[in-house]
Amino acid sequence: MGKFDEFTRFRQAMNKKILEQGNLGIKRFFALDEQAYQPGALDSKAKELIGLAASLVLRCDDCVAYHLIQARDKGASSEEIFETFNIGLIVGGSIVIPHLRRAVDFLEELAGRQP
Amino acid sequence: MGKFDEFTRFRQAMNKKILEQGNLGIKRFFALDEQAYQPGALDSKAKELIGLAASLVLRCDDCVAYHLIQARDKGASSEEIFETFNIGLIVGGSIVIPHLRRAVDFLEELAGRQP
Amino acid sequence: MGKFDEFTRFRQAMNKKILEQGNLGIKRFFALDEQAYQPGALDSKAKELIGLAASLVLRCDDCVAYHLIQARDKGASSEEIFETFNIGLIVGGSIVIPHLRRAVDFLEELAGRQP
Amino acid sequence: MGKFDEFTRFRQAMNKKILEQGNLGIKRFFALDEQAYQPGALDSKAKELIGLAASLVLRCDDCVAYHLIQARDKGASSEEIFETFNIGLIVGGSIVIPHLRRAVDFLEELAGRQP
Amino acid sequence: MGKFDEFTRFRQAMNKKILEQGNLGIKRFFALDEQAYQPGALDSKAKELIGLAASLVLRCDDCVAYHLIQARDKGASSEEIFETFNIGLIVGGSIVIPHLRRAVDFLEELAGRQP
Amino acid sequence: MGKFDEFTRFRQAMNKKILEQGNLGIKRFFALDEQAYQPGALDSKAKELIGLAASLVLRCDDCVAYHLIQARDKGASSEEIFETFNIGLIVGGSIVIPHLRRAVDFLEELAGRQP
Repeated sequence: MGKFDEFTRFRQAMNKKILEQGNLGIKRFFALDEQAYQPGALDSKAKELIGLAASLVLRCDDCVAYHLIQARDKGASSEEIFETFNIGLIVGGSIVIPHLRRAVDFLEELAGRQP
Repeated sequence: MGKFDEFTRFRQAMNKKILEQGNLGIKRFFALDEQAYQPGALDSKAKELIGLAASLVLRCDDCVAYHLIQARDKGASSEEIFETFNIGLIVGGSIVIPHLRRAVDFLEELAGRQP
Repeated sequence: MGKFDEFTRFRQAMNKKILEQGNLGIKRFFALDEQAYQPGALDSKAKELIGLAASLVLRCDDCVAYHLIQARDKGASSEEIFETFNIGLIVGGSIVIPHLRRAVDFLEELAGRQP
Repeated sequence: MGKFDEFTRFRQAMNKKILEQGNLGIKRFFALDEQAYQPGALDSKAKELIGLAASLVLRCDDCVAYHLIQARDKGASSEEIFETFNIGLIVGGSIVIPHLRRAVDFLEELAGRQP
Repeated sequence: MGKFDEFTRFRQAMNKKILEQGNLGIKRFFALDEQAYQPGALDSKAKELIGLAASLVLRCDDCVAYHLIQARDKGASSEEIFETFNIGLIVGGSIVIPHLRRAVDFLEELAGRQP
Repeated sequence: MGKFDEFTRFRQAMNKKILEQGNLGIKRFFALDEQAYQPGALDSKAKELIGLAASLVLRCDDCVAYHLIQARDKGASSEEIFETFNIGLIVGGSIVIPHLRRAVDFLEELAGRQP
């Protein structure tokens, strides 16, 4: 099982358990999180790249993985993704590099999955 | 003297002193920082909004102020800026709110300066 | 004008401007933020102390000020507040100290205001 | 070997090695860390929930695991733990979610161990 | 009153109030914090520069100011301080820059005070 | 395969892929990162310990592992490394402890490799 499948499976299983627990605040937060990336004045691709950069500088590997899946799905090119990575690297510094390595590894697995 | 003038004056005076000190690594970092927002596969407005979100989630008021100036200059609308704020708020949580307040205050001063 | 008045005035004025701007995601986030501290299985005092510690380790002065006002209002004693500060200091380290200094300064102004 | 056993074994083995090394400052810090959660004006359960929230917003999985073990041991209910999670999520934002998933996974293993 | 005097006065006044409050954990933490920079295998100058870099990447202006005072007092040269700044800038990224500006401003005031 | 080999192999493979992608900003950042630790007014050992402390307080395991390899290579003793750890622990707080555990584990593997 590749990283994509492992990430997706754990994410879905745990989100289900979290939401079943019945805490209304958490449930509403999850809904708000999803709505923030819906197209508005900015389109979905722009929003996913913004989410990707924010996740990268905060060094959240799972968040980066999620926004990479979404950004590719909304049509972001490799050049656009790497320019976003570059901004994240400059803003967040060398501590971002290990997360960048894992992001590039994940991106390569994603590329291998595209039909 | 408003916040815009104070911010700009201190920023320029201190950048000058930092660069005069002669540390080559710092000088090169400043150049890389500027280049990261030049248009490429992504245009300048998209890059400034990415920089704005990254600055907001890392809670850097001066960085937010700088990217607000640039984003407005590259044509970002209020709606686009607030959608970027919303992503930053969701990603970074309620600790982002005090920085959002100062950002909105600064944005309002910026708006008052536009001819 | 003391820090309490300045903090409260700016906070209210800016919250009003942020909410007037009409971004629905931001508006909903502000509502969720308020609901998180309503009494449930944990009472309001316990929740405010949890919010206080979270704000302190994330080094958000305005958030600390806000939760100090609320914690005092819900009946938290000085001993309870300082035990919460101690946990925040141990968890977050010496970088928390400057925020602790400002928190104690603010707490003293709060104490002076109590009838 | 489940996560609980793995976490506990590595934690104890490494704490032993760290303390054997003979750095007095580190040894004293470990003692202070333990004392911070002893009952005082606040009881142990309240302090563990404060430590849990602080660990969650700082996104420290091992710290979250440790405080979950302690909070359960001091009698915290699932509702109290999830209300603490909700505050952590609101304060720290969506980057907290991957840590929340791992916390819920760990909590479930803990629940399975209770006699 | 310059920044040095203002910083020193507030720091001393607040430390006094914090320690008078009688929380033993906080008092012991303050003692440990001071001991960490005492000479050992590493001399005081090396330790102050380490503390300076750690403070800079964590973006704690007051901590940076404190370690600048100490590092100068232990004989650190401008070149050594700027090489430490450069490491902090590379490790922590462009969000460090506003703190670097304030550090250089403070350093200049310090230089003006030396007999 | 031990952690040292795994860390080194992944690091080299991914750095190669990142640099091959052709983003000039990222390439230049990697060069600046390397240059920051070259001897200057401060020698390499002092700079590696500064990089180690900065990495530890920012809780970047891979960065800590890298600077441990370098610090040992430049002649840092165990006492010097643990005094650096102690400063990192005091500055960054108990959330640093899990990273300290992994650092000590890695350091032990490094020690076993020395001829």
